[in-house]
Amino acid sequence: MVPLRIGLLGLGTVGQGVVRVARRNAEEIARRAGREVVITAASARDPARPRDCDLDGIRIEADPMAVVQAGDVDVVVELIGGVEPAGALLRAAVDAGKPVVTANKALIAEGGNAIFEAAAAAGVPVAFEAAVAGGIPIIKALREGLAGNRIDAVVGIINGTGNYILTRMQDEGIAFDDVLAEAQRLGYAEADPSFDVDGVDAAHKLTILAAIAFGMPLAFDAVTCEGIRGITNHDIELARQLGYRIKHLGIAKRRGDAVELRVQPTLLPETELLAKVDGVLNAVVISGDAVGDTGYFGPGAGGDATASAVWSDIIDIARDTQGGARVPALSAHPEGIRALPVRPIAETRSSHYLRLQVADEAGVLRAITSILADHDISVEAIYQREPRGDQDAVIAMITSVVRESQIIEATDAIAALPIARGPVNRLRVEHPGD
Amino acid sequence: MVPLRIGLLGLGTVGQGVVRVARRNAEEIARRAGREVVITAASARDPARPRDCDLDGIRIEADPMAVVQAGDVDVVVELIGGVEPAGALLRAAVDAGKPVVTANKALIAEGGNAIFEAAAAAGVPVAFEAAVAGGIPIIKALREGLAGNRIDAVVGIINGTGNYILTRMQDEGIAFDDVLAEAQRLGYAEADPSFDVDGVDAAHKLTILAAIAFGMPLAFDAVTCEGIRGITNHDIELARQLGYRIKHLGIAKRRGDAVELRVQPTLLPETELLAKVDGVLNAVVISGDAVGDTGYFGPGAGGDATASAVWSDIIDIARDTQGGARVPALSAHPEGIRALPVRPIAETRSSHYLRLQVADEAGVLRAITSILADHDISVEAIYQREPRGDQDAVIAMITSVVRESQIIEATDAIAALPIARGPVNRLRVEHPGD
Repeated sequence: MVPLRIGLLGLGTVGQGVVRVARRNAEEIARRAGREVVITAASARDPARPRDCDLDGIRIEADPMAVVQAGDVDVVVELIGGVEPAGALLRAAVDAGKPVVTANKALIAEGGNAIFEAAAAAGVPVAFEAAVAGGIPIIKALREGLAGNRIDAVVGIINGTGNYILTRMQDEGIAFDDVLAEAQRLGYAEADPSFDVDGVDAAHKLTILAAIAFGMPLAFDAVTCEGIRGITNHDIELARQLGYRIKHLGIAKRRGDAVELRVQPTLLPETELLAKVDGVLNAVVISGDAVGDTGYFGPGAGGDATASAVWSDIIDIARDTQGGARVPALSAHPEGIRALPVRPIAETRSSHYLRLQVADEAGVLRAITSILADHDISVEAIYQREPRGDQDAVIAMITSVVRESQIIEATDAIAALPIARGPVNRLRVEHPGD
Repeated sequence: MVPLRIGLLGLGTVGQGVVRVARRNAEEIARRAGREVVITAASARDPARPRDCDLDGIRIEADPMAVVQAGDVDVVVELIGGVEPAGALLRAAVDAGKPVVTANKALIAEGGNAIFEAAAAAGVPVAFEAAVAGGIPIIKALREGLAGNRIDAVVGIINGTGNYILTRMQDEGIAFDDVLAEAQRLGYAEADPSFDVDGVDAAHKLTILAAIAFGMPLAFDAVTCEGIRGITNHDIELARQLGYRIKHLGIAKRRGDAVELRVQPTLLPETELLAKVDGVLNAVVISGDAVGDTGYFGPGAGGDATASAVWSDIIDIARDTQGGARVPALSAHPEGIRALPVRPIAETRSSHYLRLQVADEAGVLRAITSILADHDISVEAIYQREPRGDQDAVIAMITSVVRESQIIEATDAIAALPIARGPVNRLRVEHPGD
């Protein structure tokens, strides 16, 4: 099958991420999509500017409309942002029968009803996973993964900049204005921060989530929107005293035959998972009548993370162009499935927790740490309880990351020491992202 | 378009959930699927047993093969569990060209390679979202939502019973055997708990997640599997002293050209989101090279929650039978989109946090609480800081759930009191699931 050819509008942070992912994961994408996917053209306001991605083989145009209309572009990826000219470019792509992938929350939230009507009439998909919550596949979860539910509520931290500011205020007691100024200096917040801190960006995203959740038209003007400029460190501290955290939430709730749509700073009980989501992370909790509450967490912005959502949409479109089952059972198409060696457990590497029961004698700790050192194992943390009366001493420790065979040899040697009382209790320490 | 007709194999906990969801959400499902979906037949070992769902209009057969082969069944939903006879029934459905939806993790993990080969040859979809993590759409997230990523790791709490046991041990200091015995008495754990506590169930699910993540064949026999019988309250307490929680994890990690597949009790740093997932919840963290870490949380079992995943698969199949864009932009098909009134903010109901600055005088609290009582507002929690020197007093409180207009009137009245020093600072308290 011939490759699916992509045209990118915009080579900013997200556009460069889309190119980087294409370079890195071309083979992975092809075996999942069932055909090769290549970027043939891209538009950029300043084509000559140096960029953090390999543009080899990609034709760069100054005019985005030239990319939309190019004969070697099958799918248009719109990453310009803002309502116009992005809207005109998107409509031109639909008119030309070309599927569109966009990360443009403002355009979809404010103009989506007309766009979807035109796209449905033309039979052209318009995909927008990247418009909400960056790399978290929240639209797919809501629109497909929970499609059997009556959705009762969608509540989320859907603006990373605002959550970053509140987290710094909470953890370090810094005032709102000072955190904001620093975030602007570091490039986390725009020079005009109102989209983030006044809730407009969150309201765009909430509009999209609510329309999908409730099967209603996009209703951006109906969202009540309050920002976080009024939150003081004093409020954050008092809320904490009462057992709460302050978060800037987008809230869409079904209430009888009506819905509530609001973006507001709110208190969350500190035991809620959403209350524990700090920094630039995004998080959304969806309540469905069948499933109950499910939560989705991850990076809500960033070039590569948003590119992940863009590529999810592109691969959906590529899979739709094949016959047979749209999505292969194991993600890769059958001819792309490859056996992989599974590492023997003795070769896996991990940090370990050791609990030792030992005689309460001088030199015990030295004997144990000598054995560990002989096996190239260092101790990251140790906890020794005072022995009570004539009981044995208990030592718990966390080791450095070592091979399973190393730790087995070392703990066998420790267990064989005369001062050992029983076997060494051992558990692995896990860092999920490692 | 004629309705899509479903045949259910099995009317146990999940089967009854699938019927309940069909009754409750028939209209929601139809507008999302683009066509009506009806359950026409179901099999049950004991057809006469009373069940917690409305079976009206559903033909009950004692022989599941009769449902598979029925002329009025287009899609077969297999909820019998176990490897056989479920496998034979599934193969018969594929041979008859009927799409299959299954919640059967053992069958897919141990026999899926042959099943998918036969299904691909026949061009028949076999869907299994319900086989992993109950209602969390984790297979869709991994297979579609993150399809542009090279997946580096999948780490999860994927057995709710085991996590419930560890949580009770941790929170209440109860011994493993006692928690297990109680869970069995309450019906949370099977009489033979080995599938849960020895990790076999988690290994089935991990096998499926790893195959999708890495595009490798299902490799159940290659999973290293350790259970939680050896975990003591002492270990849990010592781990806590060192800053960790003990969780039973399924871990699939890419390591160079190989992978690691293991189910093990492990320590997690207490700051990790996975470490904070308690009780019967499931949670999975996926690391992708583009997106970074994304997390998925929710109920991993239960009739209605698992039925949510089954219906997601059925709706996917129903959407695949239409022309045009497979998934409508706003989830419901255009003719199913309905405008909904958005509640004016004054009519929304919420609990509120109030911060008042007041003169440090006798009777102040009485004056404030009288106004609240006059507006039918009660106080759920209150925190008053000792005034320092001749400063004003600060009172922070959490109110009962009230209408927005009520709280505005009350706070206006409080702000007008002679003892008030400045406006009342007000924020909403949010309980996401409400």
